[in-house]
Amino acid sequence: MARVLTPRAEDFPRWYQDLIAKAKLADNGPVRGTMVIRPAGYAIWERMQAEMDARIKAAGAENAYFPLFIPESYLKREAQHVEGFSPELAVVTHGGGKPLAEPVVVRPTSETVIGEFMAKWIDSYRDLPLLLNQWANVVRWELRPRIFLRTSEFLWQEGHTAHATREDARAYARRILHEAYEDLMVNVIGIPVVVGLKTTRERFAGATATYTCEGMMGDGKALQLGTSHELGQNFAKAFDISYSSKEGGREHAWTTSWGTSTRMLGGLIMAHGDDNGLRVPPKLAPIQAYVMVVKDGDGVGEAAAKLRDGLRDAGVRVALDDRTDTPFGRRAVDAELRGYPVRVEVGPRDLAAGNAVVVRRTDGSKSPTPVADVVGAVLAALETDQQVLHDQALANRESRTVEVATLAEAIEAAATGWARVPWSAVGVAGEAEANGQGVTVRCLLRADGSVPDSEDEPDLIAILARAY
Amino acid sequence: MARVLTPRAEDFPRWYQDLIAKAKLADNGPVRGTMVIRPAGYAIWERMQAEMDARIKAAGAENAYFPLFIPESYLKREAQHVEGFSPELAVVTHGGGKPLAEPVVVRPTSETVIGEFMAKWIDSYRDLPLLLNQWANVVRWELRPRIFLRTSEFLWQEGHTAHATREDARAYARRILHEAYEDLMVNVIGIPVVVGLKTTRERFAGATATYTCEGMMGDGKALQLGTSHELGQNFAKAFDISYSSKEGGREHAWTTSWGTSTRMLGGLIMAHGDDNGLRVPPKLAPIQAYVMVVKDGDGVGEAAAKLRDGLRDAGVRVALDDRTDTPFGRRAVDAELRGYPVRVEVGPRDLAAGNAVVVRRTDGSKSPTPVADVVGAVLAALETDQQVLHDQALANRESRTVEVATLAEAIEAAATGWARVPWSAVGVAGEAEANGQGVTVRCLLRADGSVPDSEDEPDLIAILARAY
Repeated sequence: MARVLTPRAEDFPRWYQDLIAKAKLADNGPVRGTMVIRPAGYAIWERMQAEMDARIKAAGAENAYFPLFIPESYLKREAQHVEGFSPELAVVTHGGGKPLAEPVVVRPTSETVIGEFMAKWIDSYRDLPLLLNQWANVVRWELRPRIFLRTSEFLWQEGHTAHATREDARAYARRILHEAYEDLMVNVIGIPVVVGLKTTRERFAGATATYTCEGMMGDGKALQLGTSHELGQNFAKAFDISYSSKEGGREHAWTTSWGTSTRMLGGLIMAHGDDNGLRVPPKLAPIQAYVMVVKDGDGVGEAAAKLRDGLRDAGVRVALDDRTDTPFGRRAVDAELRGYPVRVEVGPRDLAAGNAVVVRRTDGSKSPTPVADVVGAVLAALETDQQVLHDQALANRESRTVEVATLAEAIEAAATGWARVPWSAVGVAGEAEANGQGVTVRCLLRADGSVPDSEDEPDLIAILARAY
Repeated sequence: MARVLTPRAEDFPRWYQDLIAKAKLADNGPVRGTMVIRPAGYAIWERMQAEMDARIKAAGAENAYFPLFIPESYLKREAQHVEGFSPELAVVTHGGGKPLAEPVVVRPTSETVIGEFMAKWIDSYRDLPLLLNQWANVVRWELRPRIFLRTSEFLWQEGHTAHATREDARAYARRILHEAYEDLMVNVIGIPVVVGLKTTRERFAGATATYTCEGMMGDGKALQLGTSHELGQNFAKAFDISYSSKEGGREHAWTTSWGTSTRMLGGLIMAHGDDNGLRVPPKLAPIQAYVMVVKDGDGVGEAAAKLRDGLRDAGVRVALDDRTDTPFGRRAVDAELRGYPVRVEVGPRDLAAGNAVVVRRTDGSKSPTPVADVVGAVLAALETDQQVLHDQALANRESRTVEVATLAEAIEAAATGWARVPWSAVGVAGEAEANGQGVTVRCLLRADGSVPDSEDEPDLIAILARAY
């Protein structure tokens, strides 16, 4: 059989582009840096959204929608913030056939406009915490776009909250980090992310602390999959978000923001894909079981439809492929490319023996299975393979992560994976030096793996890596 | 009790604005014509989305996502299309700190960019029909914005499909019109829409036929709640969307597009709202039953929580309001403003008699009900009141619609409601005359109420009205 994808070992970036095109996940858009998310890719995004939305709502936040266009003046109110975004802005100068009096910016994120409305909506301590989230598109002009990873427009959720105290804000930023982000990434997407604190240099523009979830991709590089920020009182002061306290005084609120995006689709591909295509963890997969009619005749179509119904009744997300006018081999290659967790192949020969063949995408194993046992076998495979994909990604991370003592060793180790090195051996100067060689500090951890409050804590570990 | 809203009879537009502000559904955004959809409004939109999405998927369409930015040149490829939109476009001239070589337009709709990709994805008749939908924001610069009804940015779904024949395209445009749009509007939102054909003058720019769902609002005006278009081969020719037929020739496809938007929120308010606020039909309501603790003490809190649990277990979307530090009267007024279908008020006095009070939002009736019977009473009220709201809206439409024989009578009748008049008594010249007096032809119907294929069919009825 002809090779469908460039092997990962030969050219990982090429493999990634090939896979996205051939699995029909996405295309480049007509304006440079934009993307078209095709149905196969969007269905996965919808599942990510549904799972994330449920977790965000469980944490008490409510969904709302804020405008795409932001007055230029808003962005300038918080100095660090405008500095962080100014090279990336898309600016609308004409509307309704006329030049605009004040140009408007297409949102790169909504801190400023949401800050404006929080100020209107918050009056007393009774209005706090105010916990908001929105699902939206944002625009950041990208010089080196790469589909799902860095695109000029992407889809995301952005949470924005206001609290009465720094402690409440910190606790909430961390609650989302762990209960929504880490939980979804580890337990649904199957990526064993490392959760830590960003250095000052890597911190979000305008934040006082940025927490991150970092995943290791199949080539040993890191991908930042979601961040949660404490914004201190920076935005509250710039937008006058204040409240009357119980004691009667007027206080500025403490705000947070947090986001995950269609970049998670890139992470999914690069963490789990193999040389035959995508592999989607069962809990995430829009189609968990793909029932294929190998060849018409001898009651095969009926048997396949019955298996589809049985799987559906058992709560499995299932699709039936009976397009027998397309060669079976081509359909099987497509199914592998799409990464459906389990295929159930129904052909006349196996069926004559009372069997269908259960094929697991994780390892390609093919098990002839009595028709009556197929539902049970599929359910077992789905449960097992959720764990298998996670464990393979974890084994990849562990085998490519080395403990080192010096900056030089860390930079060298980052050529093939991640380095764990004492933060005291890196420091601000070392970080700049690493950056000069394409290596970044992904995050800082305590010795016990927990997330520090500040980079000034003693005995922190820094994770250094190349990153997407 | 002080009046909360301007009465509808006094000033309907003012009542509408008051209601949106006081029920905290939405705010005006900082850029003129944009809107902020607050959690109470967005939760209703999420329910509309979920119900619509399920119907669109049941009709076989798949969700995808296409870019926000469209090259200016695309819009120019279909002449009527660019003419229809040119006064409304928002144009990005700067990106990444530099002027752009070609300015890009913020999508007013995605026909052109989706046409481009359909051309890439369609090769043979086997690829047809191609049935796509996207949930997105779009921008049309509005000179006279009104929240939810006409905003410069709004949220919508836009479906785009390609078919092998005109008949297939027509059948699909009508399938969505009836099975997704009409069904949702009538059976979930409770608005008895009239479904018909737009005249040439009112047709979508670039379409060969536009079908519409028209609802009557509380003041007798019409609101267009959704449209479905046959685009003929106009876009297929402009973007070269073609396929190899079974016979081996190369043919242009036939395309459709169809959309509904956050405007449905405006329709909901104006069709069902009363002088006390919004009334949300039970099937649509994010909160169907609102359990309120009237006053603390005597086991009231526990009884209310138990009722909440019982309602939830019975499949009711329920919320508990135990904010007894806020006066009960204020909370009750807020609940009326928000339009929760049923309130269950639990207070010490009624509870001592074994009762809670079930309050129906449709008519304000208050029924002391034995605690053990509350769940049954709420379920019965939800079922009845879904129908009550629909029937009240239908009665409003019927009482304000008159059958007339001449254009002059029709224009006069449109001052207070809708006119049904023979299309032959109006015609193209009469339509222009009506427009000059602020009256439009909302749609054309056959005598039996069904949707015509063309405005040239004999014996058509025209619906004339003032409209939002």
